[in-house]
Amino acid sequence: MKGLTCVELRVRYAETDQMGIAHHANYLIWCELARTRYMEERGVEYRDLEAQGLRFPVVEAHVRYRLPARYDELLRVRCWVRDVASRRVEFGHAIERQEDGELLATARTSLIAVDSNHAITTIPEKVRKLLAPIPDPIRL
Amino acid sequence: MKGLTCVELRVRYAETDQMGIAHHANYLIWCELARTRYMEERGVEYRDLEAQGLRFPVVEAHVRYRLPARYDELLRVRCWVRDVASRRVEFGHAIERQEDGELLATARTSLIAVDSNHAITTIPEKVRKLLAPIPDPIRL
Amino acid sequence: MKGLTCVELRVRYAETDQMGIAHHANYLIWCELARTRYMEERGVEYRDLEAQGLRFPVVEAHVRYRLPARYDELLRVRCWVRDVASRRVEFGHAIERQEDGELLATARTSLIAVDSNHAITTIPEKVRKLLAPIPDPIRL
Amino acid sequence: MKGLTCVELRVRYAETDQMGIAHHANYLIWCELARTRYMEERGVEYRDLEAQGLRFPVVEAHVRYRLPARYDELLRVRCWVRDVASRRVEFGHAIERQEDGELLATARTSLIAVDSNHAITTIPEKVRKLLAPIPDPIRL
Repeated sequence: MKGLTCVELRVRYAETDQMGIAHHANYLIWCELARTRYMEERGVEYRDLEAQGLRFPVVEAHVRYRLPARYDELLRVRCWVRDVASRRVEFGHAIERQEDGELLATARTSLIAVDSNHAITTIPEKVRKLLAPIPDPIRL
Repeated sequence: MKGLTCVELRVRYAETDQMGIAHHANYLIWCELARTRYMEERGVEYRDLEAQGLRFPVVEAHVRYRLPARYDELLRVRCWVRDVASRRVEFGHAIERQEDGELLATARTSLIAVDSNHAITTIPEKVRKLLAPIPDPIRL
Repeated sequence: MKGLTCVELRVRYAETDQMGIAHHANYLIWCELARTRYMEERGVEYRDLEAQGLRFPVVEAHVRYRLPARYDELLRVRCWVRDVASRRVEFGHAIERQEDGELLATARTSLIAVDSNHAITTIPEKVRKLLAPIPDPIRL
Repeated sequence: MKGLTCVELRVRYAETDQMGIAHHANYLIWCELARTRYMEERGVEYRDLEAQGLRFPVVEAHVRYRLPARYDELLRVRCWVRDVASRRVEFGHAIERQEDGELLATARTSLIAVDSNHAITTIPEKVRKLLAPIPDPIRL
């Protein structure tokens, strides 16, 4: 679907904790995988942006954990742009269990553009044009 | 200060990423260290609760990243209870740089109580009494 | 190839450190992904073994890092059994860069079988028969 | 003791896995904390070396896991130099449980010096003089 990216991943053993579920900090890493893929699919390599001195640190993250993800489960992480401005972009994320489509978590993450000195800068026009917001496909 | 807990930690090399700053997922781990200490200081060992079959998974997390944390910096993570109900507790967190007191990030995390089958249960009375909410000491 | 398992993975941003390369601790996690797949491909689900009270902690790991792995690089992790005894199995690992086949690292990891009380036990006959050692395909 | 450095740390919840013990990859991170402290105690800040374009990637790591480390346990990581050459230094590590002094793991890690292009270089004389080898205080 246009405007939506999806990555698949399997919960790693090292990502579990002694509660027997994936530790909640990993969801931010999974969202990052989906954002990276989002850019790649639109022809922008994050590696290339970094080579130009651009970085996109996360300035806000909001995750709702609904159901636990467990070791070895296959997950789908959906990702889309919710909003984009000259210096900031907000992504939406939905993490689902592949097997039954159950929604495990939703998340919003906001990133800004900074230069190699970590000073805020504008998102390059070329990149911003690829970040086309769509309405949330699910309620976050 | 009553109702406030503070842990100190040093940013680990393994916590940095190639942006040269601490990766944003680590902040959730740092908040967890402060929550654990909060309980301990009030006489509740999380280990003991787990031995009784109780677990406290995170169901919501909201982090605002204001300034980057860098390798080897000494950080202070403050933690307090914002709100507590029969099955859910919300913590507030402030992450500061020790050297100059600069506020690097704020966060809210909500946890629920579940039993060993991961079914929602009530927070034991003994624990709930220790989770005394205070007004936010800083704006989250 | 019989006796050899291979998994592919892409270096995650969160796996890099400020040296601009994948942090060396991640290689152990990648080796674990390959061991898990090794078992799966032979019909043994690690999840099922755990449900039977069996666990396979790592008791020794030896990694030689030859060339750095970098963000977003596609890697191949090869895995095979070097040696198996009643209570211990040793795996060999080779981590290669997909693009040019360059060898980035080699590793040996040894696991033992323990029961749910973490007491050493014998590897079930059914599992041991699947762990068929082969000569090292490359020098470790 | 001269030539020996010791750091204390507490096993984090996020460091456990569903086996109920600290995941084995974390031991490499703990060893790194001890190496960093080793340098600091001798007046060398790793941050400063990096600012000069020097990096010290790990080229070999060998860990023997003897007993599991568990959540919230206080650990001591001892670290010393085993051997130093113009381009390579080998550290020894012993990880002990604080409470009873039990030895949980031993490790050897070797690092080389590289410049900002990741080309091997010599360890600066000033640094090498601080890396004074001692006989292993325990058998690795």
